[in-house]
Amino acid sequence: MTDLRIADIRVTPIAFYDPPLLNNAGCHQPFALRSVIEVETEDGVIGLGESYGTEDVLAGLAAMAPSCRGLAVTDLNGLWARTATALPEAPTRLRLRVGGAVEVAMWDALGKATGQRVVDLLGGQVRASVPFSAYLFYKFAGHANEAPDDWGEVLSPEQLVEEARSMVDAYGFKAIKLKAGVLEPLAEIAGLEALRDAFPDAPLRIDPNGGWHVHTVLDLLPRLEGLVEYLEDPTKGIDGNAVIQAATDVPLATNMYVVEPSHLPPNMKHDAFRVILSDHHYWGGLKASRDLAEICRIWGLGLSMHSNSHLGISLAAMTHLAAATPNLTYDCDTHQPWQTDEVIEGGKLPIVNGAVAVPDGPGLGVTLDRAELKRLNGNFEALEYRTRDDATEMRKHWPDWQYGRPKF
Amino acid sequence: MTDLRIADIRVTPIAFYDPPLLNNAGCHQPFALRSVIEVETEDGVIGLGESYGTEDVLAGLAAMAPSCRGLAVTDLNGLWARTATALPEAPTRLRLRVGGAVEVAMWDALGKATGQRVVDLLGGQVRASVPFSAYLFYKFAGHANEAPDDWGEVLSPEQLVEEARSMVDAYGFKAIKLKAGVLEPLAEIAGLEALRDAFPDAPLRIDPNGGWHVHTVLDLLPRLEGLVEYLEDPTKGIDGNAVIQAATDVPLATNMYVVEPSHLPPNMKHDAFRVILSDHHYWGGLKASRDLAEICRIWGLGLSMHSNSHLGISLAAMTHLAAATPNLTYDCDTHQPWQTDEVIEGGKLPIVNGAVAVPDGPGLGVTLDRAELKRLNGNFEALEYRTRDDATEMRKHWPDWQYGRPKF
Ligand SMILES: [Mg+2]
Ligand SMILES: [Mg+2]
Repeated sequence: MTDLRIADIRVTPIAFYDPPLLNNAGCHQPFALRSVIEVETEDGVIGLGESYGTEDVLAGLAAMAPSCRGLAVTDLNGLWARTATALPEAPTRLRLRVGGAVEVAMWDALGKATGQRVVDLLGGQVRASVPFSAYLFYKFAGHANEAPDDWGEVLSPEQLVEEARSMVDAYGFKAIKLKAGVLEPLAEIAGLEALRDAFPDAPLRIDPNGGWHVHTVLDLLPRLEGLVEYLEDPTKGIDGNAVIQAATDVPLATNMYVVEPSHLPPNMKHDAFRVILSDHHYWGGLKASRDLAEICRIWGLGLSMHSNSHLGISLAAMTHLAAATPNLTYDCDTHQPWQTDEVIEGGKLPIVNGAVAVPDGPGLGVTLDRAELKRLNGNFEALEYRTRDDATEMRKHWPDWQYGRPKF
Repeated sequence: MTDLRIADIRVTPIAFYDPPLLNNAGCHQPFALRSVIEVETEDGVIGLGESYGTEDVLAGLAAMAPSCRGLAVTDLNGLWARTATALPEAPTRLRLRVGGAVEVAMWDALGKATGQRVVDLLGGQVRASVPFSAYLFYKFAGHANEAPDDWGEVLSPEQLVEEARSMVDAYGFKAIKLKAGVLEPLAEIAGLEALRDAFPDAPLRIDPNGGWHVHTVLDLLPRLEGLVEYLEDPTKGIDGNAVIQAATDVPLATNMYVVEPSHLPPNMKHDAFRVILSDHHYWGGLKASRDLAEICRIWGLGLSMHSNSHLGISLAAMTHLAAATPNLTYDCDTHQPWQTDEVIEGGKLPIVNGAVAVPDGPGLGVTLDRAELKRLNGNFEALEYRTRDDATEMRKHWPDWQYGRPKF
């Protein structure tokens, strides 16, 4: 029988340029931290994964990856058993991130070794391409002490519409999402209403990242109802959002409070969120994300996909996963238009008419650009920070800025 | 890339000898109806499945199977789409049976074509062998107008202990399950208590198949608590069983009222059953059963496995599935000791120390004995019945017998 055992796992930390995008936690730093995972089988097949590059995940991978030697790339049960053994003190959150990072590379290796695409291994392709949404951010013109970037400052409704116009023109997105929780809620709603005027048919979403108080959201509901297709994490926690969901027919969506399997029973019990934004990076990989999709189908919840700043290995994995998921009920999120670096051969995967075609070829259908990997690893080595800190970055621009969740 | 498309699907109805076993619905007929499914790829690889042989499932398979030509054996999404298209009027219950029958054969074909065992394709082996329970039945000495079989009559506590002794001696089972709902409840509890005396350490279970009224069960709880590891379908429906579960710490188990995905949300909501007996034949195949296992893990439910009268293809599939399921929390059920016929080469899979080892070799690790298939198909062709009717069979022995659920 075919033996697809893991001979070695390599983890390369990288850092890539990221614009000064704003959110409830602050401002994106000039470089996003990420990791590239290579699972090499005894036959020399290399499977790729991409995940977080923060020090907790890198330390977890360093502790766990060596224990995967000898594991078959099909053996997901073994992966989780070894992850638990290697990280006995780690919270579930970290275990899911670490195991999930390797899991994607195992699927890619299995596909490459057996001549199957990941979308087929995940149960079969149900759509030719995967629709993504325009992901709008308020932003500064440039990073502190740096020249403005091409997007320029976006803090007003007019600037927001201009950002949306650029992004929709370049990529053809249909749905539009506004990252909020940054300005006063009424200013952000005004931005959303300007987007509605400029894009009358676009499904709109707003995501304050838990930054609004329950009473604020209840006050704003009359303006949000009919305006948005879903309201993402308007306030903090399952309990608070359940109060809001009980008051409106607008579905609430989350990528903050239902982020691992153990959060599903309380969510179902309290009817807090009716749309789950899945993310294979924190949910525990592709199999766990397929399980989540099936749970959403069974319980009648909507399903979409969350993104952090990412490169092409992640986008390929997201695309294969979404293409194999029948009940993907909303366009997915991606930060890809904000990224100028890439780590896969051939450069960024094209987004055409707002959608990414499933990459051809076995596995994830992408290969590593080793020169770029080396360059981005050089970025990482040269950086003085090893974890994400949006708050400190924010205060370089707005010294009096205070974190609050909820804040408004 | 490797293309594993289905060229043809063959369905062979079979009938095999079955003893006169009693349950709440009546008495097993002299022959159990079953089907053998062969999925043949364009490369000539044959994947095996085994399912029901009743006319509804056979008609469903006849309508659906031809539409699977051209489907990749990995394409489970395509399988369910084609099942829905081919059976537009069929209830979910039938679709899951028909699609699930083909699904198992697709996994076997994928494994055989790629040199992988099904247990590995399902996520990796977590136990060397799968533990099963002794499945005790009240029974008549022989079928109507036939000589007694080797087991003889089992209607008293003494006969029940003797049946258990034979089965445990022959197979080494640890747990013991009593099919109930046949005699007066007090007589069945007396049987259970006799088993406790004879097997002081054996985990015991009783399954009245919904045959007891709620008030009867509530009255019996003091005698059942401390006696059984779980109480299986004591009364009818989710609501009735929820009343019982609220009154006791003994977990309730079911293979009757949580039998398809849509039953999970109401079960979780009402806390009716705390143990699900999965069954890939009605749940929708191996992938759906893995999903069910993950849902049980997330919601903290126990998990075991149900069986109907079956042959070795089903037992192999049950064993691969259970061996890939980390949270199998109770020994599985099997009717195998009651069966004298077999359809796989080499005869019945051995049960040693109460457990079945995962068959070696790619796929399910079993191959078809075509001479036996032909003989068992001849049995089917010669039979005058095409559906299961335990009630009519029962009245050949006990003419005044009346069906009731609940009855006692
Ligand atoms: Mg969000
Ligand atoms: Mg039962």
